[in-house]
Amino acid sequence: MSVPSNPYGPNPSDFLSNVNKFEVIESTLREGEQFANAFFTTEKKIEIAKALDDFGVDYIELTSPVASEQSRRDCEAICKLGLKAKILTHIRCHMDDARVAVETGVDGVDVVIGTSQFLRQYSHGKDMNYIAQSAIEVIEFVKSKGIEIRFSSEDSFRSDIVDLLNIYRTVDKIGVNRVGIADTVGCANPRQVYELVKTLKSVVSCDIECHFHNDTGCAIANAYTALEAGAKLIDVSVLGIGERNGITPLGALMARMITADRDYVLSKYKLHKLRDLENLVADAVQINIPFNNPITGFCAFTHKAGIHAKAILANPSTYEILNPNDFGLTRYIHFANRLTGWNAIKSRVEQLNLHLTDDQVKDVTNKIKKLGDVRQLNIDDVDSIIKDFHAEQSTANTPLLKPVSNGKEEDVAEQEAAEEPSAKKQKV
Amino acid sequence: MSVPSNPYGPNPSDFLSNVNKFEVIESTLREGEQFANAFFTTEKKIEIAKALDDFGVDYIELTSPVASEQSRRDCEAICKLGLKAKILTHIRCHMDDARVAVETGVDGVDVVIGTSQFLRQYSHGKDMNYIAQSAIEVIEFVKSKGIEIRFSSEDSFRSDIVDLLNIYRTVDKIGVNRVGIADTVGCANPRQVYELVKTLKSVVSCDIECHFHNDTGCAIANAYTALEAGAKLIDVSVLGIGERNGITPLGALMARMITADRDYVLSKYKLHKLRDLENLVADAVQINIPFNNPITGFCAFTHKAGIHAKAILANPSTYEILNPNDFGLTRYIHFANRLTGWNAIKSRVEQLNLHLTDDQVKDVTNKIKKLGDVRQLNIDDVDSIIKDFHAEQSTANTPLLKPVSNGKEEDVAEQEAAEEPSAKKQKV
Repeated sequence: MSVPSNPYGPNPSDFLSNVNKFEVIESTLREGEQFANAFFTTEKKIEIAKALDDFGVDYIELTSPVASEQSRRDCEAICKLGLKAKILTHIRCHMDDARVAVETGVDGVDVVIGTSQFLRQYSHGKDMNYIAQSAIEVIEFVKSKGIEIRFSSEDSFRSDIVDLLNIYRTVDKIGVNRVGIADTVGCANPRQVYELVKTLKSVVSCDIECHFHNDTGCAIANAYTALEAGAKLIDVSVLGIGERNGITPLGALMARMITADRDYVLSKYKLHKLRDLENLVADAVQINIPFNNPITGFCAFTHKAGIHAKAILANPSTYEILNPNDFGLTRYIHFANRLTGWNAIKSRVEQLNLHLTDDQVKDVTNKIKKLGDVRQLNIDDVDSIIKDFHAEQSTANTPLLKPVSNGKEEDVAEQEAAEEPSAKKQKV
Repeated sequence: MSVPSNPYGPNPSDFLSNVNKFEVIESTLREGEQFANAFFTTEKKIEIAKALDDFGVDYIELTSPVASEQSRRDCEAICKLGLKAKILTHIRCHMDDARVAVETGVDGVDVVIGTSQFLRQYSHGKDMNYIAQSAIEVIEFVKSKGIEIRFSSEDSFRSDIVDLLNIYRTVDKIGVNRVGIADTVGCANPRQVYELVKTLKSVVSCDIECHFHNDTGCAIANAYTALEAGAKLIDVSVLGIGERNGITPLGALMARMITADRDYVLSKYKLHKLRDLENLVADAVQINIPFNNPITGFCAFTHKAGIHAKAILANPSTYEILNPNDFGLTRYIHFANRLTGWNAIKSRVEQLNLHLTDDQVKDVTNKIKKLGDVRQLNIDDVDSIIKDFHAEQSTANTPLLKPVSNGKEEDVAEQEAAEEPSAKKQKV
């Protein structure tokens, strides 16, 4: 509990905040199966489920067993693995689906029904009374089997608020484990999320789960804000894969949450396994890790501009809110470019075990920047220039009288070397 | 002004909101040049600047002319292009830099200085009095040249709030065009942003500009929330390229803002040129468009699960908050997979100009789902199954007595065909 000392921790005015006791419902094997490229074999599903469990996710959500025959068999197979994570499946609010779901061996059932005018008109065509009746029937049936039940609306942010609160209060009274809010079309913004969750929190006594699509780029921020308002569980998938451009990504949520409560996140989740987990799923669905992915994007811990590199060399916290070591990663000072500065080059000179005075480093930095103005540099280019310069200084073997660098460029430029072989050629 | 009818428009309680009159400062040629892979030749910079101008960005920000000799020459060259967008350059708060900057022909200068304890200790080593003195000197000098001036703190969210408000009030009194807030390390969350911007808005009379890094995935949401609180200008770059994993992306911000005020966004920005603009920059820095990029990610308008496809076919707004036509794009119903449903298959049957009854479509859908359980399908697979089935029905030439589908799977699955050739093999 690092609240008092950490300004990025839970806001002290949010009495209901779950920022430092959130849980994740991992939906790569449900929402993620709705990703355009996804086709998971049984073996791959089991491999992913085990990796998620090892990472430490709280729940694993699976595709509805009525989606296809194999979906049902896969659901049963994963339930038999004996994972620490609780296994859920996700169904329509319908007894046909519920009867199949409870026989698969899952620890809980996530029920969803569209409550927006759009979905009531163009999807299932039912009114709110019908929705409430179906919900009561399904919930009581699932509860009678002694497993968890969540009731969620779909497209909650385009649903009538009175209808929503009404049905949530109804199902809460029956005794669901969780109610869910879903931003199915990815339209919600953080302050809307905060208001809706806070209002809902005053109406129900059960936990609140949230599901955010990322169409307008707010899925991570919305998740965080929902937790601030009192939601407890966030739906995620690895790399966010799902319908359209997906949902809150597991890794990015970890990045967001570790800034708020590092101890809690480190105590629950094996962050150093994040990269392997993302690579596993990325390979399975034939995508590249996005260049700008939080944490594992190839340049997430790469510092380039001179003033950045200078300060990072003095204290990494100056330009890093995340510690790459927490994720089993390292940082890079990108020094082979025209924005480089003498602090970055000095660091490289030391790595090469050479000895130059600060004035000499400033001179060789100017040479490097001049070449960097003409063309793209690589590390070998820079090392050659440094070594040649060093050799000249040594052979000269006399005290040097050089024009002193005017210092103008000293801070503007430094950079991290993309020492990962893939950095320069991320596009393959 | 669609406020009353659009729940995603400006919140009526935000009296200072600029959600429907925001501007963008496009920094691909400054922040973007600090991206690990970036090396822009003069020709490429000019090509990008012209494309940005054509898209309709309000300002184009360029690398400091003191970063390198070529940086200065490039800055001068772009100022001479006669673009509609105003040209800015971005410098340290230092007279050495300011004297060079004002001679380049820019329309304005963006001045920045680190105000956090971290940066004051590990970067420039100056105290707040020194910062204020430098700021006053530089601001009065730039103003004397008759061009715009912005003063920004760096790492604003880890700076002392009293120091911050003090210096902002000081520079506002001298008469800057804008003050800037920068989340330099990407740690801020939306409600913090709202509070800081709202507080600052009560202290200064000039415009407020915001710069958000994306380390914890909140750069787009933070930008939106800043506008709600009264900020006017957002720093963006194409695909968000910049230090580490970058800043608020131009395209994603457009996705966010068009949900709030479609008329305003369409009146100012040529959204149908977004894809070309992103491809131009992605090629220049050798990256792929992220699979999950808002709007232009290869599956941003791809609908797969059955209930989604069914409703999308009836009314696209059910599962789309963005209209792909606004961006010169189209949607796809992905039907070649085991989650498909009979509504999607029926649509495909019609595309193939074949005629089947609903019961027949349900039968052929079951065949497709069975094969989809065994292996990954492509469009040809599905089309073959449909055509074979249709041929069988025709040759039978008798009224068919088939078991009626139980309807169980009818809604669970439908999908959009990744008709773009690249969709199935995004990883190359």
